This record gives sequence, C-alpha cells and structure tokens, in this order.
Amino acid sequence: MHSLSSLRTKLEQSIAALSFQDKPVELYEPIIYTMNLGGKRIRPLLFLMGCDLFDGDIESSLRPALAIELFHNFTLLHDDIMDKAPLRRGKDTVYKKWNTNIAILSGDTMFAIAYDFLTEVDPALLPEMLKLFTQTAREVCEGQQYDMNFEKQSSVTIADYIQMIRLKTAVLLGCSLKLGAILGHASPVDANFIYGFGENLGLGFQLQDDLLDVFGNEDKFGKAIGGDIVTNKKTFLYLKAMEVAVPNDLSALKHCFSDPKIQPKEKVNRVRDIYTRLDIHEKTKDQIDIYYANALKCLQEIHVEENRKEELKALAKQLLFRDF
Amino acid sequence: MHSLSSLRTKLEQSIAALSFQDKPVELYEPIIYTMNLGGKRIRPLLFLMGCDLFDGDIESSLRPALAIELFHNFTLLHDDIMDKAPLRRGKDTVYKKWNTNIAILSGDTMFAIAYDFLTEVDPALLPEMLKLFTQTAREVCEGQQYDMNFEKQSSVTIADYIQMIRLKTAVLLGCSLKLGAILGHASPVDANFIYGFGENLGLGFQLQDDLLDVFGNEDKFGKAIGGDIVTNKKTFLYLKAMEVAVPNDLSALKHCFSDPKIQPKEKVNRVRDIYTRLDIHEKTKDQIDIYYANALKCLQEIHVEENRKEELKALAKQLLFRDF
Repeated sequence: MHSLSSLRTKLEQSIAALSFQDKPVELYEPIIYTMNLGGKRIRPLLFLMGCDLFDGDIESSLRPALAIELFHNFTLLHDDIMDKAPLRRGKDTVYKKWNTNIAILSGDTMFAIAYDFLTEVDPALLPEMLKLFTQTAREVCEGQQYDMNFEKQSSVTIADYIQMIRLKTAVLLGCSLKLGAILGHASPVDANFIYGFGENLGLGFQLQDDLLDVFGNEDKFGKAIGGDIVTNKKTFLYLKAMEVAVPNDLSALKHCFSDPKIQPKEKVNRVRDIYTRLDIHEKTKDQIDIYYANALKCLQEIHVEENRKEELKALAKQLLFRDF
Repeated sequence: MHSLSSLRTKLEQSIAALSFQDKPVELYEPIIYTMNLGGKRIRPLLFLMGCDLFDGDIESSLRPALAIELFHNFTLLHDDIMDKAPLRRGKDTVYKKWNTNIAILSGDTMFAIAYDFLTEVDPALLPEMLKLFTQTAREVCEGQQYDMNFEKQSSVTIADYIQMIRLKTAVLLGCSLKLGAILGHASPVDANFIYGFGENLGLGFQLQDDLLDVFGNEDKFGKAIGGDIVTNKKTFLYLKAMEVAVPNDLSALKHCFSDPKIQPKEKVNRVRDIYTRLDIHEKTKDQIDIYYANALKCLQEIHVEENRKEELKALAKQLLFRDF
C-alpha cells in the first residue's frame, strides 16, 4: 500500500510531465497554465486512494486519475467566466489572462482530453467507468446551474442548498473514489460504499469551506474573509441563521443582505456578529460532524482490512477539520 | 438497405422523441430548443449511412448517431457565443434567448450527453469509437481556435485555410461515417476509406458554403448574401482572389476589406465584381470538383457492392453542388 505522500508525489510528477505539443498554442497554453496553478489535487488523490485501497495498480491509474483533475479544472475555467472571478489560487483566471472565448474553448478541449485519459483504462471496465463519469459530469453542471439559480431565487431551503452542493461538489469526490475502486476491481457493493464515503466527505468539505469563509484566518485560508457575505451568497451559514433567527436578528440579517449602502467590511462584521449570537459556527460544525460520521460509517462497511483505511480516515479528518 | 429518406425519417423521429425530464429546467430547456431548431442533420445521417453501407443494425445505431448531432449542436452553441451570432437557423441563438452563462453550461451538458449516447454501443467497439470521437472533438476545437486566430492574423495562406476547415468541419463528417462503419463491423481499411470520403466531402461542403455566401440566391440560401465579405472573413474565395489578383484588383480588394467607410451593400457588390473579374467562382468550383473526385475515389476503394454506394454518391453530389 502507498502512503498519501507517495501518491501525492506520483501525481504531481504526472502533472508536471503533462505536455501538449499540440497546436494552436492559444488553445493549449491555458490548459497547461490551469493544470499548473496547483491546488490540493484532492480528486485525483482520492481516485488513487480508491484504487490503492483495493490493491489496484497505481502506475496505470495515474492518467485516468488525471482525467478527473482535467475535468475539475475545466469546470473551474467555465465557472470563473460565469462567476466573473478575476483570481483563482492567487493568479489571473484564464478568461482574465486571455479572454472569454479562449476560456470557453480551452475548457471544452480539457473536457475532451479528460475523456481521452479515462479511455486508457482496461476496456472491460470502460463502460461502467464512463457511465459514472458522464453521469457525474452532468450532475456537476446541474449543481452549477442551481447555484446560479439560487442567486436570483428569494426562497432557498437548507435542503435545496444541500442538494446543490451535493451535485456541484460532493458527487465528484464520490465519483473519483469509485472510479479508482472500480480500477482496483472492488466489488460493486464496496464501490458504492466508497462513493458514499466520498459524497459525505464532499458535503462536509463544502460546509467547512462556507465556515472558513466567515470564521477562517485570512492568512491560512488564502483568500479574503467574508467573500460569501459580501456577494450575498446563500450559504449553509446564512440559511441556518435565517432558520433559527429570532425576529430582531432576522430583520438585521435581511437588512445587511439588502442594503447596498453598508460598506463591505462593516457588512461582514455585522453578519458575523449575528452568526455568532445565533451559534451558527457550532451549528455548522455539528452538521459537518454528521457528514464525517456518515463518511466513516460508509468506510466501515468496506470489505478490506481496517488498517488499509487509515489514510482515507486521516484525509477525511484533515479535510473536514482544516483551517485553510 | 435503407433509403436516405427512410434513414432521415427514423432520425427525425428519434430527435423528436428526445426528452430530458431532468432538472434544473434552465439547463435542459436550451438543449431541447437547440436540438429542435432543425438543420440538415448531415452528420447523424452520415453516421447511419456509414453503418448501413456495411449492413449494420440501424435501430441500435440511432442513439449513437444522435451523439454526433448533440456534439455538433454543442459546438454551435459555444461558437455562437464566440462569434456573437444573434441568429441560428432563423431563430435566436441560446446565448441571446437566455444568456451567456446558460449557453456555456447547457453546451457543456450537451457534450456530456453526447458521450452518454455514444457509450451505449457494443462494449467491444467502445474504445476505438471513443478514441476517434474524442480526437475529433479536440480537432473541432482546434479548428475553431484557428478560425478565431485568422481574424486577427494578417497573413493566412490557402493551405492554412484548408487546414482550418479540415479541422473545424471536415473531420466531423469523416468521423460520423467512420463511427457508423465501425458499428457496422467494417474492416479497418474500409473504415479509413469512408473517413476519407467524409473528409473530402466536408472540405468541398465548406467551399460550397463560402461560394453560396457570395454568389448564392438569398431566398434559397436562407441567409443574407455577402455576410463573409461584410465581416472581412478570410474565406477560400478571398484568399484565392488575393493569390491571383493583378496589382489593380489587389489594391481595390485590400481597400474594400480595410476601409470602414464603405457601406456593407456597396462593399459586397464591389468585392463580388472583383471576384467575378478574377474568375473566382470557377476557381472555387474547380477546387470543389477536386474534393468531389477525391471523395468518390475513397468510396470506390471500399469493399462493398457498388450499388450499395449509390445513396452516398447521391448525397455527396447534392451537398457539393447545392444552391441552398
């Protein structure tokens, strides 16, 4: 079995070795740029860990694992256009550095290359892996559409929100693990449990992200605190606060989210104060704990020796209780 | 064997039967809208004809054939954003009717669904078909990028232009036929010849399109004549004219393409006069004839009874010598 750090090293080496000698350069340069922006590489790592858990071959799984990273980066490239995001991992987004047309088209190309890399797997496993991957790709698009819808929708429930982040974020984590598990010849039952582990991990991961956006340490988190509040994003914290707020706080919260005269910094401070008064930090933590417990329950069901699961457990803990 | 009209009927029925009960509707409505805009359906028809030539099963090929139509429509959806095209087949383009974000995302979803439909083929044939499809998808993106590059590039040769339309248009016709042929269990040699037939057909098809844009009948062609001239597009006609023009015509042509004070209608008339003087209509026709002959040569090499090839020959003639 491989350690997390050894898998990470192999993965980073494969990414560094990626080269597209193809032309036109206008199409391929943004792809190389995007893949080299860094990031946690969680999804391809989960792919490899899913494979490794069932003792699958890691070397031949590296390129299929990169398919997931290519796909994920393609979605970021298009999301950044839609969200008008100028920065990604501290650098210019592709549509800012080049232009929107190039971001659309090099994104499309990355999506195609992702399929290319996935197609390299054992043909006997290909139909099942493809179906899962494509189904997940559609779900991620659906999640992004819901996310955009919610911006304009006055009433969003916590259940709506959870369904949105399930589609936009969690299913791809489940898919990554399950694809790796299929490559490792896991039984269908075990493959589904590892998907469940990833899905719960993804839900918790996103809530932790929501939490850090308000209560994180700016230096560690790597982006400005309160971005979700400034942009009126209906996160778990906001929806929970709306649910539990007494009339006074409710109207203060609504006021903060609707009065454009309140300065951003002041807005963040006021909303954070309300969240604190309403114990939203703890309530979000409680929900993350539930997803963490669910994830571990799924992991427990998988028919491999318990000591093989340690790295996945450690990663889950690290992701759900991180401060960066 | 099936007649062209019976294949067309089956195809139209499959398209009409397409339904995506999926949510969110904001994502799936534009897909249904786009698929129902009509069009010649050349690509999926070629897919079915390629399959039929080798006596493959048509019923089970309908959904894989639709994969090509979905893919093609996805590219149109994104191209229309990039080209700022307000109309497609006389109706609002998706980014105009909805918005750019929805056009990006529903396009991405169509691309994924195309893979879904293709994945339904016999697993034994899947890897080869996927590789060809993905390779073609990348080439189509490359062609679109070259097309955008040429807008800003001062010097474009005829060879550059042919390579661009080969990638942007021709390879998908070749791919459609070859995918159908693979499904019909054609030999690798025959499958490559039918690809060659489609590629030459595609090159001729695009030149005929360039020709109709200048010399077509507006009512029959279905769009305004001279659009390429108004937008300074470096088509085969323009590049050929630049190649053969004597100094006087050369400077007149350059003047037309660079002086923004010339009114569109006047510009189209002047350029068409120059083209006529330089015999560009005939020169383009000659080039189309070459592609037509090449296509027929490829068809001739295929090991099936000659009478089975009649429908493909008729279609080629119809497409390359059309006036609409």
